[in-house]
Order: sequence, then structure tokens, then C-alpha cells
Amino acid sequence: MGGSSGSSFVAGLEGVVAAETRISGVDGDAGALTLAGYPVEEISGRASFEEMVYLLWHDELPNTEELAAFRGALAGRRGLPAATLELLRAAGARNVPQMDALRMAAGTLGLDAPDDPALDLVARLPVIVATYHRLLNGQEPVVPDPDLGHAANYLYMLDGERPGEDSVRALETYLNTVSDHGMNASTFAARVIVATRSDLVSAIVGAIGALKGPLHGGAPGPALDVVFEIGEAGNAEPVLREKLRRGERLMGFGHRIYRVRDPRADVLAEAAEKLFATDGDRDLYALALEVEKTALRLLEEHRPGRNLQTNVEFYTALLLHGLGLPTDLFTPTFAIGRVAGWTAHCLEQRSEDRLIRPQSEYVGATDRTWLPAQER
Amino acid sequence: MGGSSGSSFVAGLEGVVAAETRISGVDGDAGALTLAGYPVEEISGRASFEEMVYLLWHDELPNTEELAAFRGALAGRRGLPAATLELLRAAGARNVPQMDALRMAAGTLGLDAPDDPALDLVARLPVIVATYHRLLNGQEPVVPDPDLGHAANYLYMLDGERPGEDSVRALETYLNTVSDHGMNASTFAARVIVATRSDLVSAIVGAIGALKGPLHGGAPGPALDVVFEIGEAGNAEPVLREKLRRGERLMGFGHRIYRVRDPRADVLAEAAEKLFATDGDRDLYALALEVEKTALRLLEEHRPGRNLQTNVEFYTALLLHGLGLPTDLFTPTFAIGRVAGWTAHCLEQRSEDRLIRPQSEYVGATDRTWLPAQER
Repeated sequence: MGGSSGSSFVAGLEGVVAAETRISGVDGDAGALTLAGYPVEEISGRASFEEMVYLLWHDELPNTEELAAFRGALAGRRGLPAATLELLRAAGARNVPQMDALRMAAGTLGLDAPDDPALDLVARLPVIVATYHRLLNGQEPVVPDPDLGHAANYLYMLDGERPGEDSVRALETYLNTVSDHGMNASTFAARVIVATRSDLVSAIVGAIGALKGPLHGGAPGPALDVVFEIGEAGNAEPVLREKLRRGERLMGFGHRIYRVRDPRADVLAEAAEKLFATDGDRDLYALALEVEKTALRLLEEHRPGRNLQTNVEFYTALLLHGLGLPTDLFTPTFAIGRVAGWTAHCLEQRSEDRLIRPQSEYVGATDRTWLPAQER
Repeated sequence: MGGSSGSSFVAGLEGVVAAETRISGVDGDAGALTLAGYPVEEISGRASFEEMVYLLWHDELPNTEELAAFRGALAGRRGLPAATLELLRAAGARNVPQMDALRMAAGTLGLDAPDDPALDLVARLPVIVATYHRLLNGQEPVVPDPDLGHAANYLYMLDGERPGEDSVRALETYLNTVSDHGMNASTFAARVIVATRSDLVSAIVGAIGALKGPLHGGAPGPALDVVFEIGEAGNAEPVLREKLRRGERLMGFGHRIYRVRDPRADVLAEAAEKLFATDGDRDLYALALEVEKTALRLLEEHRPGRNLQTNVEFYTALLLHGLGLPTDLFTPTFAIGRVAGWTAHCLEQRSEDRLIRPQSEYVGATDRTWLPAQER
């Protein structure tokens, strides 16, 4: 088993199947996403986030009793260790970006020796994000409310107001929709880490670090920035045409995997429509629809047959903006949803108990001879 | 590009080449390890750790001037942010294990906004480990000494005494020997994370999390435990025979990759011999040699033709014990060496700028239909 015997380099591991999983299945050709057996369209708008997490962990939805117990268990673990809070204060004083602060703080969750780290991680990620959001803005943290569900409590801890049902539903639909998505880079990082028989906190901290990269989850804001830049419907065509002429990528359109429409975009579009029907900025919603329509038309004109479609970032940005979240909370909120999948993958990987250890091919020099520094 | 089109699952990614690298090459059949062009036997016992890091980063050894500048740069970055120290105190008060504390504290190194995170990570990992070691043992941290080299300062910060040349040389030989080793799980985790265009602190924190797993770096102590258990040469054969009869694995022998002798074992054996010639416990060294000889003989008897050889853990344990390090510092000290390779791989991966994103194959249920909780 030498470095390269019998194998060859697969750049980016593209097309290599690194895991068999029952957590989610992505069919890019059909534009389909299955979450533990349920099509994303079937479950995302119906399940509470607690149900979604339970489903990904146990491969079945909880009954009424199981759900109540699970909700209670999550709600009971929202308190942060004192040292975690101190660290967030220190980070806030230095204006550390949200995702770095989330990674740092998540790393300290082992401090109070949890007996169920998966539960703690899911319960506390939103608490960290909301706490840090307030500290960054010079506000004291809001104490979590154990009577609120997971998503509602996150919104409550951000601004101190108990959110309406529509907002909670919209957020849960978002969190469910992004809860897992095959072997993406952060999930893969988590599996590589836990496969050494390391702990779940280590794995999730690694996943957060991967998610923050702009090639993964680290750039969901720009999709909405173009809508703001356009400002009114009449500007959509000239602004977008100019961007395409300059060779710029239109953020919010196209996806590495989906060749047809990203099924998550449909779910989030519907959720956004509902949210903006009762709440939020109707004009912005109408404008976003106009921008989308124009972008799709111009993209087809510009790159005929490429069939570039609206991706999940576009409606994510619209929905989270409609919920009142500032752009710097988009990626952390993605993490709050994806931690359901990360933890589920860690539990699955752990049950397989096999090290993930590929090979590398050495392409450097060989047989160099030592020379002392003064002779170099 | 659906979940499984045209590919099949490779358990543990065994044999899959995930990267081309000029940092190190492992030839398991020949029992050879190349570190940036130099055979491990050629360089490990000669280079200072600073030279080794410089070599892995730049693919050439520094000249006198470059080396002085690099030593100075590393020595100048040993101070920890105040919040990092506070976190270590909080961890110490809860008896958090060394590797968890190292992961937590390393994650906070972005707090003082370094302009060169690779340099900071290499410079500060030993400072974190030594500081935490003292806090765990109820002692105040030792202030780093900028006049000492990287390895010497680590030993100094552990016990407050300036180490002798032989100890420093032995430690540098160890750190160099383990500085990189192909696409091991922690290095791979670091590359997956940084490949999303995330930052180096995120990547190294992920790597530390992977290294702590017992299937990777998390179990280097037991190799020496058997030597202590045997206690005197006459017990070696009966104790080892009994272990083999019970089907126990002999820790310190055999390796997943090397089919012949692990080349690192030779380098560390020689370093241990030198160290114990002037320092440390001669009797223990003699006993360890006797245990090794007996173990190899019995293993050949027990599993003829398997050719199980002494691995790097056996001499690591002997060498680090000879340097006065307690067992719980073995894996953190491994990290202090391996961070040279981790950071080099991150820089290399970054220059390639390509997402590492394999596929997964969905093996779960499909087309499940939603039922409300009370009907489940």
C-alpha cells in the first residue's frame, strides 16, 4: 500500500463515494433531495426543527410522547458555560466575525462535561449565535425561554421579542431544508474527524470551520445584495446585463450539483411567499421575484442550454432577511440548521467505526542531502 | 452527477489518492518516508525544528540569515491572548483533558487578529500545552524565553528549567520525525476545511480534533505501559506470551501502512539511545530494548510471515518518557510536531484552491409520507 500504487489522483475527490448514508440523498439530475426518507418538499414545511433532528438521528419521526421529551431535553440544555460566555465577550470586544466566534465558543462546550454532546451542540449553537449577536451590538444577552421551541427561542434570543407563528414556521422550514445535504465539505470534515474515534464537539467544530469558507456556506449574503443594488424593478435588466457583460457570476443562480432546479429553492420560495404575505417587506419580495425572473431570462440568453436555475442562496437570503436577520447571521443560521445533519452523520460514522484515511501522491524532490545552514 | 452515478463506495477512502503533495511521501512497501525531499533518516536528527518547519513551508532549507529571521519571528509570537489564558484556567479548574484544552485554546488564537496565522499556530501550540500542563498541576505558567529555540522553550515552559542540549536535540528529532506523514486523517481534515477557503485556525483546530481520536494520535501511551507492566527483563517473555495467548494486540508493534520496519522507528530508536546514554533512566532503556526483542520474536512465532515490526509509538513513548514528559503530554507533543505539516498542507491546498467534496450514496428509505405526531 504505497503512496500511489494502483490509484490515481482524483482532484477534489469529485465523484468518489466516501460514505453510504441513510441521512440524506441528493439526486442532482432529477433535482431531488431526500431527508431520511422524506422528499424535502414533503417534510420541510411541516416538521418542527425538533422533529427534523429526531428524524435524522433515529431515522423515524417521534410520536407525541417522544417529541415532548426531546423538546424538553433540548430546551433544558440551552445554558452556556460561564467560560464560554466570557470568551464571547472577549471576542465581541475585538469584533471577531460571527463564524469565528461560533467556532471558538462551540469548541468550549465540552467544558461542562455533557453526557450527550450531540444534544448539547444542537441545543446551544443558536444560543451562542444569538448571545454573540447581542454582545457584538452592545446589548446584554437574552436569557433563553424553556417554554419556547428551538426555532422560536433563537428568534427570541436575538431581539428579546417572542416571535409570531409565521416567523417561527418560516425559520423552521429553512432550518429543515438545509439540515442535511449529502457529503458536503463540512459534513465530510465532521465524519473524517469523528472517524478517528474523536468526540462530537471536535467534529462539529471542524465542520463549522469548513462551513465558514466562502466556497461552502460562507457567502450567502451576496445573493440579496444584488436585489438591494437593483433597488427597483426597472433597473433589473440593465444592472444584470452589465454584470453578465463584465463576466461576473450572478450570485444566487447555478449550483455545483443540481443540473435542474434546486429542490430546496422551491421549498424556500414557498416559505418566503407565505412569510411575506403576512410579515416583512412586500415590495422587497416583489422586487426579488422580478430580479429572479429577469436573471433567469438573461442567463438563458447569455448561456443558452446551461439551464442555470435559482439556487438555495437566493431564497435563503430573502427568507432570512424577511425574518429580520442581518446578513452576518446568514451563515451562522445555516450552521444552526446543518448541525442536525452534522451530528446525525457523526453518529452514523461512529456506528461504522472505520478510519477515513485516503492516500496522497508524493510529487516532490527525492534523496536530497543535508547541508549545514552556512553552506546553503 | 447524482449520488452514485458511475462510482462506488470506497470504505475509509482506502487507496484513493486525495492529493498530490510535495510535503511528504510515504512508501509503505519500501519502509521509506521522505520529508520535502529529504529521507527522514537524513534530516530528522540534524535539523532544528525551525529549519524543519521552514523546509515544509518553502520546500527548501533556510540559509543562516533566513533561519535567524524565522527563529526570531516564531519566538516573538509566543504570548497568548488574555482570553486564551482565561479559558485554559477555566478548563484546568474542570480537569478538561489536555487535547480538548489544546483544541479549545488553539481555536481562540484568531482573537488577536494575527497577520500570519501559520506562524502563530506553530509558535503557540507548545505554549498552550506547557501553560495548560502547569495549570492542571496547580502551578503558574512559565513566561516564554525568546532567547530559547522553539523546542528548548517548550521544555523550559513545562518545568521552568532550561534544558540541556541533549534533551533539546532529542525533542527536535522527535518533532521533525513526526512533522508530516502523507495524507493521515488529521492532515486530511485540515485540507478539507481549508479547501472551502476557510482560515488556517479553523483547519488546524479540525486537525487537532482528528488527532485526538484513539485511531490516530490519541493512544501513544500504552506502548510504554507494557514496558512498565513487565518491570524487569525476566518477565518480558511470560507477560508478552500471556497477552498474545489472550488475543491482545501488542501496542507499539505493527502499522497500517508500513509492511516493513517503520523508518521513523529507527530514527527515534537512535535518538533514544543517545538521550539515554547521557540522561534518563538507563535501566528502563535496557528493559525497553529487551521487551522489543522479545516481542518481535514472539510475534514472529505467533504470526509467522506477518513481519510485524516496532512502530513509531514504541520509541516515541520511550523518548518522551526519557525527556521527563508524562503520558498525557504525548499526544499534545505529537500535535506540536505535526502542526508543521498541517500548516504546510494548508498552504499547499490553498494554492490549489479547489473544494474537496466527495459524494455519498444514499441507502435509506425513499418517498415516505408525512403523518402528524398523534398518528405516528
